[in-house]
Amino acid sequence: MNNFNFYSPTYFAFGKDREKEVGELVKRFGGSRVLLHYGGQSAQKSGLLDRVKESLTKENISFVELGGVKPNPRSGLVYEGIDLCKKENVDFILAVGGGSSIDSAKAIALGAVYEGDFWDFYEGSAKAVAALPVGTILTIAAAGSEGSPDSVITKEEGMLKRGAGTDLIRPKFSILNPALTQTLPAYQTACGATDIIAHVFERYFSNTEEVEVTDRLCEAVVLTMLKEVPRVIENPNNYDARANIMWAGMVAHNNIVGVGREQDWNSHGIEHELSALYDCAHGAGLAVIMPAWMEYVAEHHDCMRMAQMATRIFGCQMNFADPKATALEGIKAFRRFLSSIGMPINFEQLGAKEEDIPALVEKFGIGDGKTGGYVALDKNAITEIYQTAVRAELS
Amino acid sequence: MNNFNFYSPTYFAFGKDREKEVGELVKRFGGSRVLLHYGGQSAQKSGLLDRVKESLTKENISFVELGGVKPNPRSGLVYEGIDLCKKENVDFILAVGGGSSIDSAKAIALGAVYEGDFWDFYEGSAKAVAALPVGTILTIAAAGSEGSPDSVITKEEGMLKRGAGTDLIRPKFSILNPALTQTLPAYQTACGATDIIAHVFERYFSNTEEVEVTDRLCEAVVLTMLKEVPRVIENPNNYDARANIMWAGMVAHNNIVGVGREQDWNSHGIEHELSALYDCAHGAGLAVIMPAWMEYVAEHHDCMRMAQMATRIFGCQMNFADPKATALEGIKAFRRFLSSIGMPINFEQLGAKEEDIPALVEKFGIGDGKTGGYVALDKNAITEIYQTAVRAELS
Repeated sequence: MNNFNFYSPTYFAFGKDREKEVGELVKRFGGSRVLLHYGGQSAQKSGLLDRVKESLTKENISFVELGGVKPNPRSGLVYEGIDLCKKENVDFILAVGGGSSIDSAKAIALGAVYEGDFWDFYEGSAKAVAALPVGTILTIAAAGSEGSPDSVITKEEGMLKRGAGTDLIRPKFSILNPALTQTLPAYQTACGATDIIAHVFERYFSNTEEVEVTDRLCEAVVLTMLKEVPRVIENPNNYDARANIMWAGMVAHNNIVGVGREQDWNSHGIEHELSALYDCAHGAGLAVIMPAWMEYVAEHHDCMRMAQMATRIFGCQMNFADPKATALEGIKAFRRFLSSIGMPINFEQLGAKEEDIPALVEKFGIGDGKTGGYVALDKNAITEIYQTAVRAELS
Repeated sequence: MNNFNFYSPTYFAFGKDREKEVGELVKRFGGSRVLLHYGGQSAQKSGLLDRVKESLTKENISFVELGGVKPNPRSGLVYEGIDLCKKENVDFILAVGGGSSIDSAKAIALGAVYEGDFWDFYEGSAKAVAALPVGTILTIAAAGSEGSPDSVITKEEGMLKRGAGTDLIRPKFSILNPALTQTLPAYQTACGATDIIAHVFERYFSNTEEVEVTDRLCEAVVLTMLKEVPRVIENPNNYDARANIMWAGMVAHNNIVGVGREQDWNSHGIEHELSALYDCAHGAGLAVIMPAWMEYVAEHHDCMRMAQMATRIFGCQMNFADPKATALEGIKAFRRFLSSIGMPINFEQLGAKEEDIPALVEKFGIGDGKTGGYVALDKNAITEIYQTAVRAELS
């Protein structure tokens, strides 16, 4: 096991009706003038925004609003938010929504107290030293941004998707009410679930040895998802299944299951090019890419860790004479699961095109180099993974 | 799943040599004048205290010392620490040691800023509103106090063992270096491991339904212990096994595996009377009590959760015609495991006496009432559990 730091100081208020406490929580964490940041109409229509405003007003907290966050959130709205914060002397940013709203709020939090361009932090040319405090009210279990120090933003010029990460933008509090996710369409629910599973697998496939405790914790999260996701696809109003998924989504990404080990985020990276180009849901892209990545890995790494996944998570019988057969059986089971919850499993189902592969690889931007990770990838490897994703079928 | 709050803001610095960063961490969390609080000679002999002092001095942090913490830490030393803090204007308490040193440090932290008797917080007659900040350097994986808001102290008059819990005494930081635990004797290592497993099982046995995610996380921790503990008993210098156990010990008790569900701390309560009377190791007492408690529960509750434990954790085959048989098989496996790592499994091996049972039950102090929990217990039930623990054998 490697040395590590773990720091997850977010206060989580989990359960029914917890959004009614938001005013109190903003106050507790020092906010008096809030930017209320959200996406589309749903928070308005559902009455959630009204409940939030009521709670803020009750605590004498004033606010300005900025809606309109889109999936794969854009830099344009971030700039708008930064200007608004500076003009209105905002001292706290409250995101209401999913990972997109939260990531956009985090970017605004960084930019609002910075003289330069917030994008500096995303392209890595500056290191953040301050940020406004951020709180969240989560409405979809997916990105894990409610408990993470990360934010991913897409810059319109060139559709560049880049991330920034610093403890400065870890939410001070996150309100997780599973009931707020009950109105989500099945497709979005499944996309979120796939993202959660991917957050675990990106940590699970590691060359660091002797990491039993985090292996087991990773497996615990995915096993939970295998049980609970089909239940919410069948009955969107299943509060308890929603609750298990929502907490699993936080645990999957605040890094408690990933400490002390190298991680491999290549599937996320390879997917990011898909959602940047086609504006498809990140989770849907992951459903197509991740099993294809696994098949590549099964050909280029000893298969013991993949066989461990197959047996411990997907209930396969270990084939002691042929561990690779067990590994491949596990990948098949994973793809069947993804398809069963309504996820695409190949390019066609996702709406992606084989002829775009050279452009996707080019955008990935490693030139003649290699990525790090469980198996290092060069551009030929990435091409092969995209091609596998074109052809993937259930079996 | 029940509504819950989860808040674990401790900064964990995990790995080799991390104690050398203690001065920097005390400074980061606002300390300038430290009470260095520890137990016996081992921290001195090993050179750990010298390394700590060197790191503090390097950051211009002054300190006073108070050693002598005993297992099942006593109120006498707490009073001494409180006086010292007040006299010396201490602003930060640094515990170096195991749960006893940390719990004692937490008690001093509460008392040092309180006009009345710190025991008020332990007997529940006052509610804490402030405490000095506490940091820890952990030297045994066991109590989980390094990441918990709890402290247990024994008052000499009447040997009363009572706990206090508040976020005010959650450590600001905890340094976890598994190498520091390598010098522990096998018996102490196993006692600590048993305590860790008990922290999980006290959360696992719950009447709250629909808690798959925390069930799975609980199982993950115990499965880790089943693999790693025998390895350190065999080779005390196995750093990686020590590391997995150390992180498991934190995860077992910062409540990430216990949120959203009723918990049952009766085994801990029943054990506390043993360690208070005989001054035996808490973990050893738990090894005797917990399986006996499970046997009582198997007779007074449907056995499905116990059978889940048996199959998912101890690898038993589910007996679908007779779930209770599976449950009992799991309890047997648990007792065999405990014995295999050198733990006592009955009164005689622990050094406890059957004739003391009436006094133990009396001290437990529920009179003609009942405890709460997975199965509510009256004094007859508690008597029966102690008696089962007298007679327990391997099978």
